[in-house]
Amino acid sequence: MTAQARAGVHWLYSLDATMPSWSERADGYPVAAFADSCLRGVGQVCFMDNPVTGALFLLGLYLYTPWLGTGVIVGVASATVAAHLLGLDRVAIRAGLYGFNGTLVGAGFATFLSPPWHGAIFGYIIGGAAASTIVMAALTTILVPTWQAPPLTLAFNIVTLASLVAALGLAHGHAGGLLTPGIVHHAGPSTSTALRPTADSAGSYDAVALANALFRGVSQIFLANSLISGIVIIIGTAACSRIAAGLALTGSAVGGAAGIALGGDGYAIYHGLWGYNSCLTAAAIAGVFLVLSRRTFMLGIAGAVVSAVLYATLSVLFIPWGLPALTLPFCLATLTFLLIKGHVTDLDAVPLDTLTTPEQHLRQGLTTPEQLRKQGGKPLHARLQ
Amino acid sequence: MTAQARAGVHWLYSLDATMPSWSERADGYPVAAFADSCLRGVGQVCFMDNPVTGALFLLGLYLYTPWLGTGVIVGVASATVAAHLLGLDRVAIRAGLYGFNGTLVGAGFATFLSPPWHGAIFGYIIGGAAASTIVMAALTTILVPTWQAPPLTLAFNIVTLASLVAALGLAHGHAGGLLTPGIVHHAGPSTSTALRPTADSAGSYDAVALANALFRGVSQIFLANSLISGIVIIIGTAACSRIAAGLALTGSAVGGAAGIALGGDGYAIYHGLWGYNSCLTAAAIAGVFLVLSRRTFMLGIAGAVVSAVLYATLSVLFIPWGLPALTLPFCLATLTFLLIKGHVTDLDAVPLDTLTTPEQHLRQGLTTPEQLRKQGGKPLHARLQ
Amino acid sequence: MTAQARAGVHWLYSLDATMPSWSERADGYPVAAFADSCLRGVGQVCFMDNPVTGALFLLGLYLYTPWLGTGVIVGVASATVAAHLLGLDRVAIRAGLYGFNGTLVGAGFATFLSPPWHGAIFGYIIGGAAASTIVMAALTTILVPTWQAPPLTLAFNIVTLASLVAALGLAHGHAGGLLTPGIVHHAGPSTSTALRPTADSAGSYDAVALANALFRGVSQIFLANSLISGIVIIIGTAACSRIAAGLALTGSAVGGAAGIALGGDGYAIYHGLWGYNSCLTAAAIAGVFLVLSRRTFMLGIAGAVVSAVLYATLSVLFIPWGLPALTLPFCLATLTFLLIKGHVTDLDAVPLDTLTTPEQHLRQGLTTPEQLRKQGGKPLHARLQ
Repeated sequence: MTAQARAGVHWLYSLDATMPSWSERADGYPVAAFADSCLRGVGQVCFMDNPVTGALFLLGLYLYTPWLGTGVIVGVASATVAAHLLGLDRVAIRAGLYGFNGTLVGAGFATFLSPPWHGAIFGYIIGGAAASTIVMAALTTILVPTWQAPPLTLAFNIVTLASLVAALGLAHGHAGGLLTPGIVHHAGPSTSTALRPTADSAGSYDAVALANALFRGVSQIFLANSLISGIVIIIGTAACSRIAAGLALTGSAVGGAAGIALGGDGYAIYHGLWGYNSCLTAAAIAGVFLVLSRRTFMLGIAGAVVSAVLYATLSVLFIPWGLPALTLPFCLATLTFLLIKGHVTDLDAVPLDTLTTPEQHLRQGLTTPEQLRKQGGKPLHARLQ
Repeated sequence: MTAQARAGVHWLYSLDATMPSWSERADGYPVAAFADSCLRGVGQVCFMDNPVTGALFLLGLYLYTPWLGTGVIVGVASATVAAHLLGLDRVAIRAGLYGFNGTLVGAGFATFLSPPWHGAIFGYIIGGAAASTIVMAALTTILVPTWQAPPLTLAFNIVTLASLVAALGLAHGHAGGLLTPGIVHHAGPSTSTALRPTADSAGSYDAVALANALFRGVSQIFLANSLISGIVIIIGTAACSRIAAGLALTGSAVGGAAGIALGGDGYAIYHGLWGYNSCLTAAAIAGVFLVLSRRTFMLGIAGAVVSAVLYATLSVLFIPWGLPALTLPFCLATLTFLLIKGHVTDLDAVPLDTLTTPEQHLRQGLTTPEQLRKQGGKPLHARLQ
Repeated sequence: MTAQARAGVHWLYSLDATMPSWSERADGYPVAAFADSCLRGVGQVCFMDNPVTGALFLLGLYLYTPWLGTGVIVGVASATVAAHLLGLDRVAIRAGLYGFNGTLVGAGFATFLSPPWHGAIFGYIIGGAAASTIVMAALTTILVPTWQAPPLTLAFNIVTLASLVAALGLAHGHAGGLLTPGIVHHAGPSTSTALRPTADSAGSYDAVALANALFRGVSQIFLANSLISGIVIIIGTAACSRIAAGLALTGSAVGGAAGIALGGDGYAIYHGLWGYNSCLTAAAIAGVFLVLSRRTFMLGIAGAVVSAVLYATLSVLFIPWGLPALTLPFCLATLTFLLIKGHVTDLDAVPLDTLTTPEQHLRQGLTTPEQLRKQGGKPLHARLQ
């Protein structure tokens, strides 16, 4: 093999996992380092500390609509700048840990405020994303030292829900048409359960409908509603971790199936709304925060079902304000399942400061951070400490 | 006294308190041990780690309606099985600590979902009770090591409220007629305060009405609405602890009296809805988690009043979704009062891993777990660790 | 200078800061000590451990309406008596730390229950204020040892909101006309933003309107709605700390400006409703709990903006029950910002048991409690331990 070919192979290999060599190279150039932090921030929405993953996620969002992709870029950049201005832990910033909530704040504001491309909304994304960095730091103080629990996307949910509620009452709130406050009633008996692309189209459970539910269930993590975006996001995830990609698809399928079994609205299921929380929960429990095993896989499936039920819960609970469930079902289900780790036998919890990818967790088993460092592995970003 | 008579006396004596000899004997037979765990799980709803108490509680529920009793049996069994499958602490399982939330999930689903005996509802009770075990373990991680606070029935409340809200929007949700979402308004001035068995009957404060409020206030702990059930539940409690039975009755009386004093709906008071939270709170504060004394008795009464107010609070707060208050008022009031224990002088808090009965707490005073073990007492079930 | 003149100068000097010499002198006379505790309790609503400040606050409230001032006196006295009866830490009681929540419960009940001077409302203030002492002790257990976070006025918010919700459904609830449950809708576009004294008067942004927003924004801390009261409260604050007074005014201005920028209802802005939370947050973050610096000042301004947004959030969130936001926006914003202190560089957090005034914090810098004691400073009231 020539040196050139060998370099090419090395580059391909470095696509995998968290790509520490890219981090190191980017660190020499402030702009590159900032871009790398931001791309990793986008990737971290699916727990992927990988800039190529982040770039593919952005591609998926732009394919859905440029306004969503732009909102995400403004959000992740603002949150990351805020973290630098506050002097937060640089290792965590470089791993994208102060960017993923801002990413989603950008997506959330772009989706639920209107009209698109309005200057005020850019301002709100900048402010909201910066606030998400502060809330993330506060949640880290609460959750990590006391319970070794990760703050997940709670900061995004808190900032976005609080902002959208406020927007309903403000002359310059720009609350969009998706926010429709209403009255709760027994909707069950009148719910139309067949999967369908529009509210009044004929429903079906054919392969097209199921594929839409499956992949839109992935894209809805970023509030995108597109089969193509979902496929690109799965490819992006696989660029960092095949296990995570597989778990995400499994979770989306479980969420959709739960929706069908419980009699959820088939329009919502078709558009992936029953899938995205289950998607994140399955990956988080089965491979990211716990080492993949038969037992954690079963827990991940159970967590995906619980996430789907909680999606149904919040969808009704938030009706009086017309709010979306966002990823709050994922946060609540995942935190609950992770908090039992000290009580359940045969669960290997990954120490938060050594998180990398499900594949590396499997290889390392219960390796301590010290051992990991000696073995030359990336002892990672003191996640959320 | 003949040997036989002595054995009989011993058997009678062993009815008292937590009956450790029964536990030991049942431990030799897996089915007996499981049944013992489940019966103790039913008893633990009123803090009674005693299988005879659990059996009498079940009797009380079957006397009200077999569907409620059956829901409870399915619930406690599912929660206990889930705890075994997860490999949770066996001592805690055997003391019923992973069964009481499932007991109440069964009672809650049987009451608020419909129609009775429907196969789907059995499925939901199994799933919800299993989920309550996971939530209980997570709450234990949060509350016990950090604040030495017991999770009480919070897991039941969380699982049941989340499920009932979700049910309102699902085609297969089986939300029953008791769940009636509405609009909040100033109901105060139009509230009819006289105690009465039906909404439109003439009200009174005579002995029959007061007895109904008192004993239905006990039975409503299990969502049963029956004077007879309340009496049987008090007898069952007394089989384990006379102090607890007395405190429970006192609490129910205080709750009902608070309802009358504050001008609560007399229909709700008659049916025990103002009593059941106060009932649990008085027992929890005055004798179960703190050693009975003049001071803890006063705090228990105060806690019973606070529980009654919180029942009124949640009854209005939940109107938009038509949800019941369940035992959330008890949980919130009791946790608040227990959390002050480090600040208040002359309060003897019972270490959570040595909880038995108010009588034994009194005898042991501030005995440490180590001393307790040396004295041959039952050092109990590492409650909730 | 004569001895008399010197004594006068000494007396004037002792007006400043926390006036420990007054505490010591009052300690000889139980009634004087109790009155001193209560006045400091009123002052602590604005973090001022100073009886003259408390007296001036009371003056400001009586100038608005004697019923509000009387409610406050009954509230602070009941909460302080309850703390003595429970045997809570005497140093904390003497510093007013078990009085300020009762102060606000008195103000809240006097404002939102009706009619004024009704005997039942006096009873409710006594009970609610006593309950606030218990909730304060419980919150101290949760927040202080684990996260070194102060409970602020959370106890007041919890007790008052819970009571007002309950009042809506009780025959003797005395819920007043200010509690008006409603339906949430997109109010934004129809919001009238010009500052105006009555809902239908012509609006303006002239000096009179701005001064009203500014000073009413201070008086609304105590639920008073008066420019004069606001000025007296600022003078009272300045008697203890000029920095705190300046920060409070700055915060009120930032809150009002945020209301104008976001398009809040100009009637609410004029009457100070956008100011009072920002007022408290700015003082808390920039000087009281963190040592004043350029960085904490910027954080205080940011916190004031966040408080204003959260005021808008809660105003909409509480519409279904017609509840007021009270000082919950301040509590949530301030706790969030204080919880990041371990992550942000160059922040000097004042240990909770050495809190005095922003001026003394500045002088002492990061002095430890031990050093402070040696220097003869007032090592203060073991605040909230």
